[in-house]
Amino acid sequence: MSAAPRILIWNEFWHERNNPVVGRIYPDGIHTALADALGTHGFEDIRTATLDQPEHGLTEEALESTDVLLWWGHKKHGEVSDAVAERVQARVLAGMGLVVLHSGHFSKPFKRLTGTACTVNWREDGERERIWVIAPEHPIAAGLDRYFELEKEEMYGEPFEVPAPDELVFLSWFKGGEVFRSGCCYTRGRGRIFYFRPGHETFPTYHDATVQKVIANGIRWAAPTLQIRERPANVNRRPIEAID
Amino acid sequence: MSAAPRILIWNEFWHERNNPVVGRIYPDGIHTALADALGTHGFEDIRTATLDQPEHGLTEEALESTDVLLWWGHKKHGEVSDAVAERVQARVLAGMGLVVLHSGHFSKPFKRLTGTACTVNWREDGERERIWVIAPEHPIAAGLDRYFELEKEEMYGEPFEVPAPDELVFLSWFKGGEVFRSGCCYTRGRGRIFYFRPGHETFPTYHDATVQKVIANGIRWAAPTLQIRERPANVNRRPIEAID
Amino acid sequence: MSAAPRILIWNEFWHERNNPVVGRIYPDGIHTALADALGTHGFEDIRTATLDQPEHGLTEEALESTDVLLWWGHKKHGEVSDAVAERVQARVLAGMGLVVLHSGHFSKPFKRLTGTACTVNWREDGERERIWVIAPEHPIAAGLDRYFELEKEEMYGEPFEVPAPDELVFLSWFKGGEVFRSGCCYTRGRGRIFYFRPGHETFPTYHDATVQKVIANGIRWAAPTLQIRERPANVNRRPIEAID
Amino acid sequence: MSAAPRILIWNEFWHERNNPVVGRIYPDGIHTALADALGTHGFEDIRTATLDQPEHGLTEEALESTDVLLWWGHKKHGEVSDAVAERVQARVLAGMGLVVLHSGHFSKPFKRLTGTACTVNWREDGERERIWVIAPEHPIAAGLDRYFELEKEEMYGEPFEVPAPDELVFLSWFKGGEVFRSGCCYTRGRGRIFYFRPGHETFPTYHDATVQKVIANGIRWAAPTLQIRERPANVNRRPIEAID
Repeated sequence: MSAAPRILIWNEFWHERNNPVVGRIYPDGIHTALADALGTHGFEDIRTATLDQPEHGLTEEALESTDVLLWWGHKKHGEVSDAVAERVQARVLAGMGLVVLHSGHFSKPFKRLTGTACTVNWREDGERERIWVIAPEHPIAAGLDRYFELEKEEMYGEPFEVPAPDELVFLSWFKGGEVFRSGCCYTRGRGRIFYFRPGHETFPTYHDATVQKVIANGIRWAAPTLQIRERPANVNRRPIEAID
Repeated sequence: MSAAPRILIWNEFWHERNNPVVGRIYPDGIHTALADALGTHGFEDIRTATLDQPEHGLTEEALESTDVLLWWGHKKHGEVSDAVAERVQARVLAGMGLVVLHSGHFSKPFKRLTGTACTVNWREDGERERIWVIAPEHPIAAGLDRYFELEKEEMYGEPFEVPAPDELVFLSWFKGGEVFRSGCCYTRGRGRIFYFRPGHETFPTYHDATVQKVIANGIRWAAPTLQIRERPANVNRRPIEAID
Repeated sequence: MSAAPRILIWNEFWHERNNPVVGRIYPDGIHTALADALGTHGFEDIRTATLDQPEHGLTEEALESTDVLLWWGHKKHGEVSDAVAERVQARVLAGMGLVVLHSGHFSKPFKRLTGTACTVNWREDGERERIWVIAPEHPIAAGLDRYFELEKEEMYGEPFEVPAPDELVFLSWFKGGEVFRSGCCYTRGRGRIFYFRPGHETFPTYHDATVQKVIANGIRWAAPTLQIRERPANVNRRPIEAID
Repeated sequence: MSAAPRILIWNEFWHERNNPVVGRIYPDGIHTALADALGTHGFEDIRTATLDQPEHGLTEEALESTDVLLWWGHKKHGEVSDAVAERVQARVLAGMGLVVLHSGHFSKPFKRLTGTACTVNWREDGERERIWVIAPEHPIAAGLDRYFELEKEEMYGEPFEVPAPDELVFLSWFKGGEVFRSGCCYTRGRGRIFYFRPGHETFPTYHDATVQKVIANGIRWAAPTLQIRERPANVNRRPIEAID
């Protein structure tokens, strides 16, 4: 793997064009804001794709030239075609990294890859979230202090109906009384998946420097260490040792 | 949970009626052989279902009266309807136990619940398999010695493309030179899943007393400890603490 | 394993006799309060032991007749002899369950069994703790609601320097802004260990019915399913298969 | 972390000087053979230390200038001082990587860090070992084929009495009929630990190019991503939020 993973940022890109509050925060869309931010973190090969493009911008060719895919979606999960969701899943199993942001927890690719309901408790009142680093040695926590805060965020509360993460990096505290596993790492097939909780569209979360740093760290962690390999397959094998 | 989980044994039931070798080993089908065996292990509520029944015998009602489902399938995975596979998955996430046997690793429910390709290397030559207990304290290993052997089995070799199991109970050694993670435990949602490797249809594996004991142990382990609950759901919540 | 694990409750029993506040809450000691509470949960074989007894009440004989040991200690960890700590560790590795309570996180047996520093951030101001169930299907969460609260508790904050738990059952929210992994399950050797956070001596935590229920659940979970076996040993073995 | 971890190779260095068979295979000691091999893998800062040096060559200063420590020991585990073993443990918990080789499974530092008995079954007959890659995507498996073989090795058989590894990379097949978890990854505190099974002193295992590649990969994986931090400590904290 080169030091420069090829990044593709996928965004539903609906709220920004249909909710003036969101449009003011992200006038060119969350995907563009993220692309700009990642450019300042030393990544060079950054592309974007959105729901209303043909095949949602996630053609076989697009995925084959992607090392790490970011996913932001919310209201329009149901409009992502099953064929594209399956294609993303297959590409992750073959080695592509996937960084799932906020309400992407309920996206088709994440539900397919986890096999679970992915439900949460939630509240959009806009309250303080304090994100604690519980694995200070983890590469995704590189450069962070003991915790960081977001003054206004949507609340997600436990139980988060996902498989126990292979590595748990962050826990969130919410002013309203809840907690949440906010940084969850999974390996599925040859691919790595990082779920990162914050990012409700009506708050300027993706303009926050610490949030940007975590996403940059997550991309580096999720980037494949090897050439992405062949998809897994059932293979009939000859004996290595005599079996008689 | 009562001490008597309600068991439903699902079998494709195709090989037994189309391959004379298999028909001689399991004249009434693998499901019936397993039901008879489990009856000797103290289970009382044991039913069976097969592929060619309406809805494959896996109606909502059938699943609602099931605590632990066993699954054996091989050639006809593709004939299981997606609706039924999704129903089984949802019931596991709500708390039903699932014991997946042998080539059931490639069944629709197991692939949906693991999110992975579930591929293996394989060889049907019929060779010695020695199954090692690597977690002697685990309830699924109760009453077993250090290892047990099957004189003739199909080989499954690593890599087994599944999520790292939450608990790994058995490892297989094959005469032909391979190894395999043969007893894999998962929790998904409120449900427990046990994958147990042996059981190729052309060998009398399910007549083996140790194999039967492991399956009985697996059922007890996978049985829900509580009443099966409501399916997980996204729920909007009021603050518990003042957020202003 | 019978349905009635033999329980031994170990308590430092120093604060109750040297701090009048604690003495008023637990006039006969935390161990006695716990023994009384567990008696109402259907356990019958309940004994206690304290620091100032010979060998701290943890002789070989005492441990050999114990299925699950509870451990509460705080100021006097250093006065527990290394020989006794090693004996407890060896007994857990051979299959005894261990329930570690509150400041027992810093006890010699827990530090030996985890291999880590077991440090926490802390504050004794007495603030609200809300303990969230993040694994509703886990036997230790049986009978609990989504969360329970303790009006006044000591705060323990992350990072909790322990190995990632094999199963994580509870997360705590603290009024002062922190979070904590408050219910941690481990398997070490043949034994199961449950760490449960609450229980500072200056608050009446162990008189709380929900706390008592969790401890009762934890004991049932940690109780060995089998006869406790021989201690693990390095063993020289003959080949099973021909190696030439 | 720079791209060049500072490596310290610790060797008991007894067999090479007391057993002519071993002396012929490793005339300058296993540590020197490993140092030479690692030099060809691009590492530059490679030092060695042995049992009979003052403080076994593991002074505070030596450890403070080490990013990854390798450990080979066998007959003389008992001669390693407890103070040095505790120092190594503390340094790992503060972030130093540790690669434990072969019979180092029974060393004081590894037993302290795992908290378990670390026992195995074993046989020194010299038989074929085939090491399977079960996590092809793991950095420690980089550049490996599906498996590699060692024609003559000591057998280690399950159960291996260690905590379930955080990541399991290799499984061994032995001609004589056993299996073993041969590549086990742990995170403990801020440090990473890799246990790698092969390397009995009477066989030329550490001259094998694939074995050398795995050890090089293991060092890169275990190297801390950050500056090694302060040791963990219990810290009294002020509230972040108002608690009244």
